[in-house]
Amino acid sequence: MRNEAAQPWPRNAWYQAAWNSELGEKPLARTIMNEKVVVFRGPDGKAAVLEDRCCHRAAPLSMGTVLPNGVQCGYHGMVFDGAGKCVWIPGQESIPPQARVKAYPTVEKQEFVWVWMGDPALADPALILDYPWNDDHAKWPHKHGMYPVKCNYMLLIDNLMDLTHIPFIHRKTIGGGGRMEQVNAQVEIKRTESGVHYMRWMLGHTPPPTYVKAAGWGADVKVDRWQEFEYVAPGSVIQWSGALEVGRGAQQNRDQDGGFSLRLYHGATPVSETECYYFWTPANGYQQHDPAATELLYKEIAYTFTEDLAYLEGQQARLSEDPDRPLVDVKHDAMRIHARRAIERMIQNDSPAIAAE
Amino acid sequence: MRNEAAQPWPRNAWYQAAWNSELGEKPLARTIMNEKVVVFRGPDGKAAVLEDRCCHRAAPLSMGTVLPNGVQCGYHGMVFDGAGKCVWIPGQESIPPQARVKAYPTVEKQEFVWVWMGDPALADPALILDYPWNDDHAKWPHKHGMYPVKCNYMLLIDNLMDLTHIPFIHRKTIGGGGRMEQVNAQVEIKRTESGVHYMRWMLGHTPPPTYVKAAGWGADVKVDRWQEFEYVAPGSVIQWSGALEVGRGAQQNRDQDGGFSLRLYHGATPVSETECYYFWTPANGYQQHDPAATELLYKEIAYTFTEDLAYLEGQQARLSEDPDRPLVDVKHDAMRIHARRAIERMIQNDSPAIAAE
Amino acid sequence: MRNEAAQPWPRNAWYQAAWNSELGEKPLARTIMNEKVVVFRGPDGKAAVLEDRCCHRAAPLSMGTVLPNGVQCGYHGMVFDGAGKCVWIPGQESIPPQARVKAYPTVEKQEFVWVWMGDPALADPALILDYPWNDDHAKWPHKHGMYPVKCNYMLLIDNLMDLTHIPFIHRKTIGGGGRMEQVNAQVEIKRTESGVHYMRWMLGHTPPPTYVKAAGWGADVKVDRWQEFEYVAPGSVIQWSGALEVGRGAQQNRDQDGGFSLRLYHGATPVSETECYYFWTPANGYQQHDPAATELLYKEIAYTFTEDLAYLEGQQARLSEDPDRPLVDVKHDAMRIHARRAIERMIQNDSPAIAAE
Repeated sequence: MRNEAAQPWPRNAWYQAAWNSELGEKPLARTIMNEKVVVFRGPDGKAAVLEDRCCHRAAPLSMGTVLPNGVQCGYHGMVFDGAGKCVWIPGQESIPPQARVKAYPTVEKQEFVWVWMGDPALADPALILDYPWNDDHAKWPHKHGMYPVKCNYMLLIDNLMDLTHIPFIHRKTIGGGGRMEQVNAQVEIKRTESGVHYMRWMLGHTPPPTYVKAAGWGADVKVDRWQEFEYVAPGSVIQWSGALEVGRGAQQNRDQDGGFSLRLYHGATPVSETECYYFWTPANGYQQHDPAATELLYKEIAYTFTEDLAYLEGQQARLSEDPDRPLVDVKHDAMRIHARRAIERMIQNDSPAIAAE
Repeated sequence: MRNEAAQPWPRNAWYQAAWNSELGEKPLARTIMNEKVVVFRGPDGKAAVLEDRCCHRAAPLSMGTVLPNGVQCGYHGMVFDGAGKCVWIPGQESIPPQARVKAYPTVEKQEFVWVWMGDPALADPALILDYPWNDDHAKWPHKHGMYPVKCNYMLLIDNLMDLTHIPFIHRKTIGGGGRMEQVNAQVEIKRTESGVHYMRWMLGHTPPPTYVKAAGWGADVKVDRWQEFEYVAPGSVIQWSGALEVGRGAQQNRDQDGGFSLRLYHGATPVSETECYYFWTPANGYQQHDPAATELLYKEIAYTFTEDLAYLEGQQARLSEDPDRPLVDVKHDAMRIHARRAIERMIQNDSPAIAAE
Repeated sequence: MRNEAAQPWPRNAWYQAAWNSELGEKPLARTIMNEKVVVFRGPDGKAAVLEDRCCHRAAPLSMGTVLPNGVQCGYHGMVFDGAGKCVWIPGQESIPPQARVKAYPTVEKQEFVWVWMGDPALADPALILDYPWNDDHAKWPHKHGMYPVKCNYMLLIDNLMDLTHIPFIHRKTIGGGGRMEQVNAQVEIKRTESGVHYMRWMLGHTPPPTYVKAAGWGADVKVDRWQEFEYVAPGSVIQWSGALEVGRGAQQNRDQDGGFSLRLYHGATPVSETECYYFWTPANGYQQHDPAATELLYKEIAYTFTEDLAYLEGQQARLSEDPDRPLVDVKHDAMRIHARRAIERMIQNDSPAIAAE
């Protein structure tokens, strides 16, 4: 019924291949759904994803160089444009038509480089997730991060669908403060067309040390704290977390100045059945004019996620040893189960999901 | 006929899982007979061995914490007692009966933590080896050590059954001194119900430098030196080595003050067909009142065993490459062959061995 | 048709096992055609190659010691002579006839240690390559090098058969200077009985910085530069590269004092289908009386070859992922294709190749 150890993925969907900030002089090597690809900015200024294998002698193109007219193989110098067509063979005038490499539909949007590994005829850019906050650097200053993780991509999504892990895994960082207040938050769950949305509230809550420091609160301030998460299949989780002092009406309007507010995009792209890339970008919604605050937030998140990674890789190791053993669900698995059902529906169709509004 | 590359093991027997000194705040991860287990001291003060996999989401319990009421999974906080029963689920009152993990019969005795991986109904503590010297810290002060080794557990036993390796592998440490005197020691071999016992004597022998230093002998002292070893299937070797000056009647009575005397327990626990744990504890029987002497002995043994490990892993590599190729036995293999026959008998019964007296 | 990912090899041929300068106090562990062997100088002063597995307990002989009477196993002390015969068992008078290990025909010649892994009856020393320059230390001072490489041995030969890689892979070292002059050199190709020979000329050429420095030329000297390569199946490539000032008649006589001149032997020995040893020795033909120049040349070549190794291993990884995918040949593959045909002919016969004149 479930496939914890090696959840398959839909091919006909957009997945994140890179952050656009990763594209530079050197082509970028990635592995997506077991295919080796190279990501670079092509001659027309457009991001491109090609197979990472020169058609001449199979050298990895990612060992080469990005030139004005394409990516150059570093072995004997062939150049390929963003469509995978060979445009130069050193010392040879004619270029045979079979001198080309596979190209994948690629779209750069809102700082993401999205790739479509399935049937190119179905690659509709209208299906790409909308994440407008990446374009709003004034209100949501942010930095990009990526971790390769040795776990199935859905174990990462699982992690984000059950936040009761925070006061355990992250007790020394973001999970500090009253443990049971965090475990017993009020939760409202809503199934969506392409995933699941949930909102958690901790009212009259003692804020964790990191919130106190960021917001500049006094020692005995109590807050109304929220965690809003939405999973959009196959690989996106959109997060908005924050807190306002009790009495400021956070439940009616969270979008107020002061207090603490943080947005996080989480992306999971399958590398193999038991590996994925974890793309993330934390946005500072509390001290927007201070680049040091944005940098500090980035570093704290980068460290915090390493705590998750150890568990995700530990889980994968155990699941791979005996993939068919049953597991025991508990109450807090409700959101996780919705997410697993959403990905299963998407695989049954293996057609594009509806992007989140 | 023989199975050098991957000798099987009896399941219905006690094996060492840990030294009791290894149990502390952090649960201990071990792999025994290809099963991942976690070792900790449970709420009743008793050592416990559970499978190292939370029943909720398969996270390794060894990544968690030892609490007063059991071992806590570090991911979402479930707690399991020493019998594997879940005793707490954060945020949930009722605990479903299937919320449990496998527990293995475990006994702590004489500083060993023994585990029974086979049929629990057969796990009789009366079958556990008796090693009283670990309880006698005044006469036999000692320290515990453990090495993971990439070899079948019986290659380690083989090593201890043919001491002619000492003047070759250990020529720079404990095997110093006259090589052929060591090779040509008098040997008396006795088959036992559960293994083999042998006694080697080097009479009128020039002692090795380490003995001279420990005993404080002069430059031209000659000694009667002995090596007494007993293999107790499946995984124990009990050693008593020492020397007394010629004329003190060592062969009539070895238990005299002065001279050199050392006890060593060696334990081999299968991790997989080609890996094992090597548990060892050297006891200082010559300068019992000097903790520095006990520490020095421990360090010398720790170093000496790394010399063996290199050979054991080299052997395993060669044997795994071509497991069916025959080997050539020589005279000094006699004890080793007895040990191999003992383990084969035990496997044929796969029933508990008789503990050594 | 082709077998890029895992080109087989002829067994009945001589391959380089070591440089003679590698033989010393410690026996040398090598893997040739998936067989573990040990190389040492035997009791008769002759280089010997035995299987690297003691017949007693399968310990690697390469962990032992070279003694005057043979190689001694470091575990229990057996000694084997260069023919693989056991000549000593510690503590035992009689040596059983089955106490022996496999020996391979071995010849030391011109600083090479050659081994024959196939049928010993066919191992004719007359078939061994002649490389007289290794014996001429006055005119061709040189040093020996070896790299293990994770690629099929023929990918290394391919590399040496298409020098248009030099201005790309090595643009920062030996490939500096005018790129297209190097790509578009005049080439003359000659098929030989056991491989292929080619000569490349760059006339009126701007020499690369390393040549200028070595020859002591002024800033605007133009040269006639050559690259002469011969592949001798299965694993040898003989190189002579150099340059003389324009007008000195290099094409009529390359063997003149002054200018730049370098000889390189390249040897590829299969370790496995996807690994090989790369043996090389660069000879300084321009400043023969300066040991520092020979040392510098050695270091520069050692570094330059690491640039190739990265590509060879990258190629192998891609080829192994999908061995049956076709590749696209270009004009400069002509010599490489000759070399591939030569090795295929040799495999079809699996008989000794004719050594190069």
